[in-house]
Amino acid sequence: MSKQKGFTLWMTGLSGAGKTTLTTRLVRELRNQGLAIEVLDGDEVRTNLSKGLGFSKEDRDTNIRRIGYVSRLLSRNGVGVITAAISPYRAIRDEVRRSIEVDGAVFIEVYVKCPIPVLAERDVKGLYKKALAGEIKEFTGVSDPYEEPLEPEVVVATNQETVEESAHKIIRALARRGLLRGVENTGQASMPYQRVVDLESPTAEW
Amino acid sequence: MSKQKGFTLWMTGLSGAGKTTLTTRLVRELRNQGLAIEVLDGDEVRTNLSKGLGFSKEDRDTNIRRIGYVSRLLSRNGVGVITAAISPYRAIRDEVRRSIEVDGAVFIEVYVKCPIPVLAERDVKGLYKKALAGEIKEFTGVSDPYEEPLEPEVVVATNQETVEESAHKIIRALARRGLLRGVENTGQASMPYQRVVDLESPTAEW
Repeated sequence: MSKQKGFTLWMTGLSGAGKTTLTTRLVRELRNQGLAIEVLDGDEVRTNLSKGLGFSKEDRDTNIRRIGYVSRLLSRNGVGVITAAISPYRAIRDEVRRSIEVDGAVFIEVYVKCPIPVLAERDVKGLYKKALAGEIKEFTGVSDPYEEPLEPEVVVATNQETVEESAHKIIRALARRGLLRGVENTGQASMPYQRVVDLESPTAEW
Repeated sequence: MSKQKGFTLWMTGLSGAGKTTLTTRLVRELRNQGLAIEVLDGDEVRTNLSKGLGFSKEDRDTNIRRIGYVSRLLSRNGVGVITAAISPYRAIRDEVRRSIEVDGAVFIEVYVKCPIPVLAERDVKGLYKKALAGEIKEFTGVSDPYEEPLEPEVVVATNQETVEESAHKIIRALARRGLLRGVENTGQASMPYQRVVDLESPTAEW
């Protein structure tokens, strides 16, 4: 078996769009295929790298740069990294992309897309309601900017696709780039449809 | 060639004791042997993970935990990590050790030891003079605590050994633990004696 090529699968999208759900699904699939995978999600990073940071543009940028730095170190050593942070600013995402690509690893930007009305309707934690009512400041997509990716490698529309469908789009993108050790034919053992569960909140996410 | 086993080589010791010099020497040697090595030194970490932290006990602990977290992620994926931070507090070093060992990676604590009078005499940047005169607060070993390791895997006495000798002690410790892919016989191509250059300062180090 040849050495695994490192990559970073960078999920970006609004709170509640499904980044964490998709990540959980992908981790299982990719580890089942024998890949070394690390996840850097909001909670993990907030606890271990970014305690004390807030939601100002500067603090968000710092947080994303830290996730990017760790992703870079892992990716250039042959690990597959999945990040699941809102990462609202395009310039910082692009900066991270360059830092990873310059080391010869692969950066795949996945835009986890869902319209705000749908998110506001899901609104498991009632955060969109509060944000739309002006009660939460710096809530991405409502009272704080979200800059859509211009040329993401993958777009998943979580209001139109099942988690399975979205996961398979991403798996195919990895396969096309030769990141699955030649295992291109995935998905037969795919899990039944799972409901998108919103595990995200502004305190657990970025 | 079998897969490399991950490890963290954790240098601890006072500012100016020689951690960075030793690290530079080891990185060259270990990369020459074909190992994947990452370095987390004071500057690197301060820039990428810990901007804004100071030198209070709490901030130092946070900084060391971040270095430990990244070391853990890398080590458990088969990378050899060398850290070069003062890391004055025993409890945090031991906490990092446990977190790395629990994942099945190897933690090797290297005490880079040098008496303060010798450090004060070297004192390339004049920092010990200032600290001893009471002009620098929170200067480890003078106006801030340094807790010596109780059972480090390796002790190097940089006031009595050449850089080569210290480096070889560490290489042997790695070899004994099977971390050099069976390449036990190192050192023939060793570099000539290098003078210990103090690259460290309280702003560049922890």
